[in-house]
Amino acid sequence: MKKYDQNDTLPEDYKAALIDLLAFQADSEFAGGQRVEENMKFATRPEEAYRLAKKVMEEMGHGWYCWEILAPLGVDVNARVQHLVQNRDNPDPKKVRVINGFRKENWSTLFECWADVAMFSTAVTPAAVAFLGQYRESSYLPWAKVSERIWAEEKGHLAFGVWAAKRVMELDGEKGREQLQAAVPKFMQIGLGFAGRPADDSEHFAKYFEYGLKVRTAQQIQDEYMEIVSKRLKEIGLEMPAKIEANYDMRVGYAASQPLTMAGK
Amino acid sequence: MKKYDQNDTLPEDYKAALIDLLAFQADSEFAGGQRVEENMKFATRPEEAYRLAKKVMEEMGHGWYCWEILAPLGVDVNARVQHLVQNRDNPDPKKVRVINGFRKENWSTLFECWADVAMFSTAVTPAAVAFLGQYRESSYLPWAKVSERIWAEEKGHLAFGVWAAKRVMELDGEKGREQLQAAVPKFMQIGLGFAGRPADDSEHFAKYFEYGLKVRTAQQIQDEYMEIVSKRLKEIGLEMPAKIEANYDMRVGYAASQPLTMAGK
Repeated sequence: MKKYDQNDTLPEDYKAALIDLLAFQADSEFAGGQRVEENMKFATRPEEAYRLAKKVMEEMGHGWYCWEILAPLGVDVNARVQHLVQNRDNPDPKKVRVINGFRKENWSTLFECWADVAMFSTAVTPAAVAFLGQYRESSYLPWAKVSERIWAEEKGHLAFGVWAAKRVMELDGEKGREQLQAAVPKFMQIGLGFAGRPADDSEHFAKYFEYGLKVRTAQQIQDEYMEIVSKRLKEIGLEMPAKIEANYDMRVGYAASQPLTMAGK
Repeated sequence: MKKYDQNDTLPEDYKAALIDLLAFQADSEFAGGQRVEENMKFATRPEEAYRLAKKVMEEMGHGWYCWEILAPLGVDVNARVQHLVQNRDNPDPKKVRVINGFRKENWSTLFECWADVAMFSTAVTPAAVAFLGQYRESSYLPWAKVSERIWAEEKGHLAFGVWAAKRVMELDGEKGREQLQAAVPKFMQIGLGFAGRPADDSEHFAKYFEYGLKVRTAQQIQDEYMEIVSKRLKEIGLEMPAKIEANYDMRVGYAASQPLTMAGK
């Protein structure tokens, strides 16, 4: 597998695919931070509020790390962050690329209480861990390098979810437990669908795979996801639902709405 | 000076004064974090956004540290944080105690662009450094202990302001420089008035001073404030305005609207 570093000349197709994937991650990470911040209203205790603010900072940090790599590739990253902060409720898909699940209209319907916030980090974040983990082996070395840190912090967010869920169990009694259990299916559906349909591993994927920009199939990511979630639910003391249908509407899409190199200029 | 630790029995008057001051700090720190978050819309670059999110987290952390000390004193801190997150635009002064400057109606009029955000941390934060620094010598030892960390992080926020201002100078050219310079007076007025009127060091202060809950006069805090600000403006390369009238409307007040031990129950 050919690897490329910061100042190497990149083949045109490779560069386009790289920018496409990276911009998608950068914009989505940052928008994800904005969404997480909106859950602050559900905070029940001082420490919960603090830890949620830490998660916001880290998600925005992930956006920053990815944008730092994009800037030398000729992408106007300042325009992207400015668009996101100035249009947080409804960013223009022609200007920034945000995963469906991190658009406000989709996100806001999912949360009603702090138990939901805890369960999101417990049952959706493992998909991010499995999905983003693959970029540690990216053929684009600067991306591989920051992915180590991003992946470590995503695992930290999963740990936050487990911590928050355990606190709900411990401090909010039976009602808390019921809220958590009720939230498991809706978030697992999203987690399971996060990386897209296994059957969709079509031409796009083949290209990314050939370039070394992706190294795992949707099926592998789903498998790892299920393994992490079942382990963590067990640790918290919650039931694994009998059957979960993946929800692919919130997935990380492949196709760009327009060539990304045009966006954000 | 008599010092008290976590499980010591506190004299009734001392305890009331302690709760009063601590709740004021805890609630205001957290609300300050909420206000800082509202400035995210002015972020100009990825790193700027990330560092602002970090500041939000730290301010909320300061709230958490202070609430952690308040809880064993019989204050319902969960009710306070819940009230703040559920009523961020207009918290009820009967339920939480927020410094005027950190109420949305006062704060929001002060900011128009990122240069304002930078200048707030450069020209108001030094007042927090000078004011909160005194609590490191508090006669209530748990408070003295967390104040070390809070004070260190407040100095970090000042450093953030200096960093942000330098970036504005460097990356936004002459226009940035003008915006910064224009923002100096309005923020210095607030910084100078932060600790209240020197002439107000009246009965309240005498009591706090006697208890070892405050150790510095408003005049001393103003002097230290001016020293820090003039050094930092010089470092950034900005002019110190000829004459600054302190604005005492945003100050850290002393009088509680009602006995605080009643609040948030």
